Amino acid sequence: MTPRQRGWRAALVALCGAWLAVVMGTVQAAPTIEHWTRPDGARVYLVPTDALPMLDLRLEFDGGSRRDPAPQAGLAAATALMLGKGTQAWGRAPERREDALAEAWADLGAQWSATATLDRFSIALRTLTRPDVLHAAVALLAQQLAAPAFDDGVWQRERQRLVAAWQQAQAQPEARAQRLFAQGVYRGHPYGREATPQTWAAIDGAAMRAFWQRHARVCDARLTLVGAVSRQQADALADTLLAGLAAHGCAPLPPVPEVEPLAQATQVREPFAGAAQAHILIGQPGVARRDPDHLALQVANHIVGGGGFTSRLMHELRERRGLTYGVYSYFVAGRHAGAWTVGMQTKPEQADQAVALIHEVLQRFTREGPTVQELAEAKRSLVLGHALKLDTNRKIADQVAALAWNDLPLDELSTWPARVQALTREQVMQAWRRVIDPQRLVTVVVGAAP
Amino acid sequence: MTPRQRGWRAALVALCGAWLAVVMGTVQAAPTIEHWTRPDGARVYLVPTDALPMLDLRLEFDGGSRRDPAPQAGLAAATALMLGKGTQAWGRAPERREDALAEAWADLGAQWSATATLDRFSIALRTLTRPDVLHAAVALLAQQLAAPAFDDGVWQRERQRLVAAWQQAQAQPEARAQRLFAQGVYRGHPYGREATPQTWAAIDGAAMRAFWQRHARVCDARLTLVGAVSRQQADALADTLLAGLAAHGCAPLPPVPEVEPLAQATQVREPFAGAAQAHILIGQPGVARRDPDHLALQVANHIVGGGGFTSRLMHELRERRGLTYGVYSYFVAGRHAGAWTVGMQTKPEQADQAVALIHEVLQRFTREGPTVQELAEAKRSLVLGHALKLDTNRKIADQVAALAWNDLPLDELSTWPARVQALTREQVMQAWRRVIDPQRLVTVVVGAAP
Repeated sequence: MTPRQRGWRAALVALCGAWLAVVMGTVQAAPTIEHWTRPDGARVYLVPTDALPMLDLRLEFDGGSRRDPAPQAGLAAATALMLGKGTQAWGRAPERREDALAEAWADLGAQWSATATLDRFSIALRTLTRPDVLHAAVALLAQQLAAPAFDDGVWQRERQRLVAAWQQAQAQPEARAQRLFAQGVYRGHPYGREATPQTWAAIDGAAMRAFWQRHARVCDARLTLVGAVSRQQADALADTLLAGLAAHGCAPLPPVPEVEPLAQATQVREPFAGAAQAHILIGQPGVARRDPDHLALQVANHIVGGGGFTSRLMHELRERRGLTYGVYSYFVAGRHAGAWTVGMQTKPEQADQAVALIHEVLQRFTREGPTVQELAEAKRSLVLGHALKLDTNRKIADQVAALAWNDLPLDELSTWPARVQALTREQVMQAWRRVIDPQRLVTVVVGAAP
Repeated sequence: MTPRQRGWRAALVALCGAWLAVVMGTVQAAPTIEHWTRPDGARVYLVPTDALPMLDLRLEFDGGSRRDPAPQAGLAAATALMLGKGTQAWGRAPERREDALAEAWADLGAQWSATATLDRFSIALRTLTRPDVLHAAVALLAQQLAAPAFDDGVWQRERQRLVAAWQQAQAQPEARAQRLFAQGVYRGHPYGREATPQTWAAIDGAAMRAFWQRHARVCDARLTLVGAVSRQQADALADTLLAGLAAHGCAPLPPVPEVEPLAQATQVREPFAGAAQAHILIGQPGVARRDPDHLALQVANHIVGGGGFTSRLMHELRERRGLTYGVYSYFVAGRHAGAWTVGMQTKPEQADQAVALIHEVLQRFTREGPTVQELAEAKRSLVLGHALKLDTNRKIADQVAALAWNDLPLDELSTWPARVQALTREQVMQAWRRVIDPQRLVTVVVGAAP
């Protein structure tokens, strides 16, 4: 039985009669993942596809912004930014300063990027699989990983750009609201740290080199490949890519504490000179991605404020009262409990009314739960939308990298529709009530009428 | 022989020895297009794919902003904006006001949009091909096309949002530079018209209805479908989609004049209070998309300023002089000759030096043409990049709709790499010299040191 056949069987076993037709369309798009751990410790996730002569690759480390030292908030992001700004010589590869490096990528017609999110330091590569291009692209990326220049002169220029953008953001009420909200929800947890001109001033090339040495290690790297490569090719590419990375043993990194639940409700209400709109953010810590209730909470959130025009918040605040053009809610879920956030804008004089209404909608949903019809519509909408999350290799690579990062089962994507369908109204209500407490929300209003 | 086999043969015949290996990778990704004209006059372009249970659809009319009456500049865009803001009852479908319409789309898990570019009024739909969803989505879109509400109250609200965004843009030097540049290149041609609070004030629901009646006509519609549908299904979907559109005969719309070449060079130099950077735009009218030199000009532009870090402008202004973080150039090509534009920002006191250098680079390239190496690298980079333009159904739909709109050959996409490779240095130089005259450029600098 091939891996593809096994994937099909596993998916089919999970299904039951009435929903078969629904889910089939989605299973068709769900990727079959091959997974193995290399002798060097790196975990590989491969989705072989042959429709296009292309490869989408993700390489991930435990080096997200939660690993920033507090006085150097922004270090992970700065390291990601500077990873493409020049490399030292490495093996037979010559030194490549910033522009030469960009030219080398342009010559290959390949695209790469590095980003640091709350949890993860992520490197993405997209390249054709023509042998000359593929191997040159992976070798070039390997040089960047092995011998980044982290040049202090280039960093000073980039730092000035960051500071200029930061200053511009300070003139905007939404940035102020975001900052107050993050402080309220995270209360000092690393997820809530904010980079500022002061913390950027405390960062230099040496700090990036130390961060990179510490976090870019083979032994706990996760490598995802989606595209026209075999397992053997994938392993050969991994050999090249990981060759120059820190091979030191995998002593555990210091644990990051969990986000603590809120003890009580807090309200912050700030005027903001010149704000045409009041910016409202309401929420509290949610759950980690691996939480068993994560899926039920996605369904609940869809009904409350995640489902766009069909959500309760939209119905109440936009359709019935005309208080806003749009209101939304979402969970951020990584290895820790990211914020669950409701956001909207309204006229300054309507801010108090809007806040009261949001609180009321949340209290009522928490008390009564979804209606049978709401639940059915949310499931339908989420299942239909699932296929759109997997319609390109790039999206599949992102989804597989996320499940790899969070140690989720390999059939997470193919069983997702059936698991959504199987959720009962009680499960959704209980999950919601366990996590969201309308009596302990953080409420931030910036730019309200005084 | 199936259409797919015919497509392969046509592509293979176009190729020659040495480049076979290069182009094969791309041909693999090049779509095979079925094309027919319906009895109602609509032209259909179908790319059947079965990898995903999805359909991407484009429907296009001759209703771009070049069709705006001058006192109502912005009418095409306003009509596109308002097409999703509610429908009247139609057949058995009930009236759907703005929010109900948005909810209906959300229930289907389908996405649609309407946009007006310079040439075209374009409607895009993406839906799953599950039969119940597919037919409901196409029927809903058909209702929007047949019976748009164009409600005046909703338009007043949207107009206020447009005006607020416009006012914000006026505080930015780039918007001022864009406007001066468009005036200089287009000199009253409809491609250069700008919507303003005055022209929006002259637009109402009745004007949109008249515009829609006039331009959304079946007889010259072009319909592109990419996805898991057969020709028979495509025709049935077209029946539904086009059922309520104006069926009036296809009397030609009034001709739009061509963009005239510039008679002489012009320079505009404006201070801008508070501008931290000078915004530089330099250019002139280019060519229409159907111009036989379009391809050669793409190659020339890649070398001059289109190729990112490998371009001459980038090398001269960024690498050698450190005058800017980036400088780029591009052609806009529709049914008329859109602008060829060079753009960059620099410190206000360096603006004059930067302008002089850009002029110098252009003069030299026009005089000497590309080097053999530059030409080879540009071809390689463009051919490698071609596959990335066709790596999703959505992108394929956009590319096929563009070739349909411009009456290009159906094998345009599959022969593209071979045609790029076949271009000689002389062809590239001659095309460039025919079109670009460094003695007659429009040069705009906003925010230079006084």
